[in-house]
Amino acid sequence: MSIVQEFNEYRTKMNERIIEEDNKVLKRLFNLDTNAFAEGALDKKTKEIIGLTSSMVLRCDDCVKYHLGKCYELGFTSAQMFEAFSIANLIGGTIVIPHLRRAVEYWEELQKGN
Amino acid sequence: MSIVQEFNEYRTKMNERIIEEDNKVLKRLFNLDTNAFAEGALDKKTKEIIGLTSSMVLRCDDCVKYHLGKCYELGFTSAQMFEAFSIANLIGGTIVIPHLRRAVEYWEELQKGN
Amino acid sequence: MSIVQEFNEYRTKMNERIIEEDNKVLKRLFNLDTNAFAEGALDKKTKEIIGLTSSMVLRCDDCVKYHLGKCYELGFTSAQMFEAFSIANLIGGTIVIPHLRRAVEYWEELQKGN
Amino acid sequence: MSIVQEFNEYRTKMNERIIEEDNKVLKRLFNLDTNAFAEGALDKKTKEIIGLTSSMVLRCDDCVKYHLGKCYELGFTSAQMFEAFSIANLIGGTIVIPHLRRAVEYWEELQKGN
Amino acid sequence: MSIVQEFNEYRTKMNERIIEEDNKVLKRLFNLDTNAFAEGALDKKTKEIIGLTSSMVLRCDDCVKYHLGKCYELGFTSAQMFEAFSIANLIGGTIVIPHLRRAVEYWEELQKGN
Amino acid sequence: MSIVQEFNEYRTKMNERIIEEDNKVLKRLFNLDTNAFAEGALDKKTKEIIGLTSSMVLRCDDCVKYHLGKCYELGFTSAQMFEAFSIANLIGGTIVIPHLRRAVEYWEELQKGN
Repeated sequence: MSIVQEFNEYRTKMNERIIEEDNKVLKRLFNLDTNAFAEGALDKKTKEIIGLTSSMVLRCDDCVKYHLGKCYELGFTSAQMFEAFSIANLIGGTIVIPHLRRAVEYWEELQKGN
Repeated sequence: MSIVQEFNEYRTKMNERIIEEDNKVLKRLFNLDTNAFAEGALDKKTKEIIGLTSSMVLRCDDCVKYHLGKCYELGFTSAQMFEAFSIANLIGGTIVIPHLRRAVEYWEELQKGN
Repeated sequence: MSIVQEFNEYRTKMNERIIEEDNKVLKRLFNLDTNAFAEGALDKKTKEIIGLTSSMVLRCDDCVKYHLGKCYELGFTSAQMFEAFSIANLIGGTIVIPHLRRAVEYWEELQKGN
Repeated sequence: MSIVQEFNEYRTKMNERIIEEDNKVLKRLFNLDTNAFAEGALDKKTKEIIGLTSSMVLRCDDCVKYHLGKCYELGFTSAQMFEAFSIANLIGGTIVIPHLRRAVEYWEELQKGN
Repeated sequence: MSIVQEFNEYRTKMNERIIEEDNKVLKRLFNLDTNAFAEGALDKKTKEIIGLTSSMVLRCDDCVKYHLGKCYELGFTSAQMFEAFSIANLIGGTIVIPHLRRAVEYWEELQKGN
Repeated sequence: MSIVQEFNEYRTKMNERIIEEDNKVLKRLFNLDTNAFAEGALDKKTKEIIGLTSSMVLRCDDCVKYHLGKCYELGFTSAQMFEAFSIANLIGGTIVIPHLRRAVEYWEELQKGN
């Protein structure tokens, strides 16, 4: 199983358990997440790359993986991803580099179609 | 070995090595930790749930696991845990969600009595 | 004008401008905040002190001020506040101390009935 | 003097002093900042809004002000800014709200042409 | 009154009020701070520059001011301070730069003997 | 394969892929990293221990591992490492302790000559 499949499986499984618990605030927070990235005054691609870089400067590997998947679906090129990565690493500093390594590994996996 | 046992074993093993080193500041810091969560003007349960949510907004998985263990011993219900989780995820944002997933997995493991 | 009044005035003024802008995600996020701290499986007091300590470890002075106001309304004692502060400073480290200073100043102002 | 002028004046004055010190690493870091936001595989507008939201989730008011100035020059609309703000507040959580208030105040000042 | 005197006055005044409250955990945490920076296997200068840079990457202006004061007393040169700053800004990223500006302003004030 | 070899192998492999991508900003950021830690007004040892503690308070395990490797090469003693750890844990708080455990495990591995 690829790191992409592994991530998606665990994420789906646990999100389902969280939703089952029927906590209103968490449910609405999960819904808000969907609304925030919908087409609007800013297009979907801009919103996803914002989500990606915000996740990267906050050093959240799983959030980065999620948005990398979305960015891949939306057709971003590697050159564009690396420019986004470079801004995130400059703003967030060299402590972001270990997260960059994992992001690059995941991005390459996505490109293999896994 | 369950994720609960795995966490506790590694934690105990490494804490012992740290204490062996006989660094005064670290030893006192470890002791302070015990004192801070003792019954006082605030009861133990309030202090543990404060420890849990503070650990969650700071996105420290191991700290969350430790306090989940304590909260389980103190008899918190799942509904109470999820309300605490929901506040932590609202205050800390959706970057906390990956830590919520791991917290829920650990909480379910605790409930199995592992 | 006291630091309490100053904080509340600016907060109210700017929140109104934000709501006026009619951004759905922000409006719902603001509403979620109200829901999350409502009486539930956990009582209001526990939720507010969770909000306070989470804000303190995240070093958000304005969030701390907001929750200090709520904690004051809910009748927390100074001894209880300081135990909460002590846990936040232990978990978050000495970098939290400057925020503790401002929190104590604000708490004393609240007690003067400002 | 408006909050925009105040920010720019202090920023320019202190940046000059920093450059005068002739520390190579800092000088190159300052230059990198310019390069990272130049037109490339991603256009300037996308890069600036990435810079804005990354600064907001990291809760750096001065960084937010700087990128708001750039976004204003590049012709972003208020609706676009608020969608970016909403993503930053959702990802970063309600602790970002105090920074949102100051960002909105600064954005309004920019629109007055100050 | 200089920004150095202002900082020290407020810090002393509020620390006294915190100690008056007689919270054991906070008192011990304050004492630990003194012990941690005492001469040991690492000399005082190394410990202070560690305290300074750790405070800077964590973007705590007041902590930076405190350690700048100590570093000034211990006879660090401006060239040495700027090398420490450059490492902190590289590791912590460009979001540290606004804190660097305030640190440089404070350092210059210290050198004026204020 | 030891955790030291594992870390270095993955780090080298992914850094090469990142450099291959030929993104100027990232390449220069990587070079800056080398320059920042070179002998200067501060000696190499002071710079490495600054890098180590800054990485620890920022809770970046991989950054800590990298600087532990450098500190080991430069001949720091365990007593010195633990004093640096104690300052990092005091400034960053008990949320740093899980990172301390992993740092101690890695340091012990380095001493075995792996």
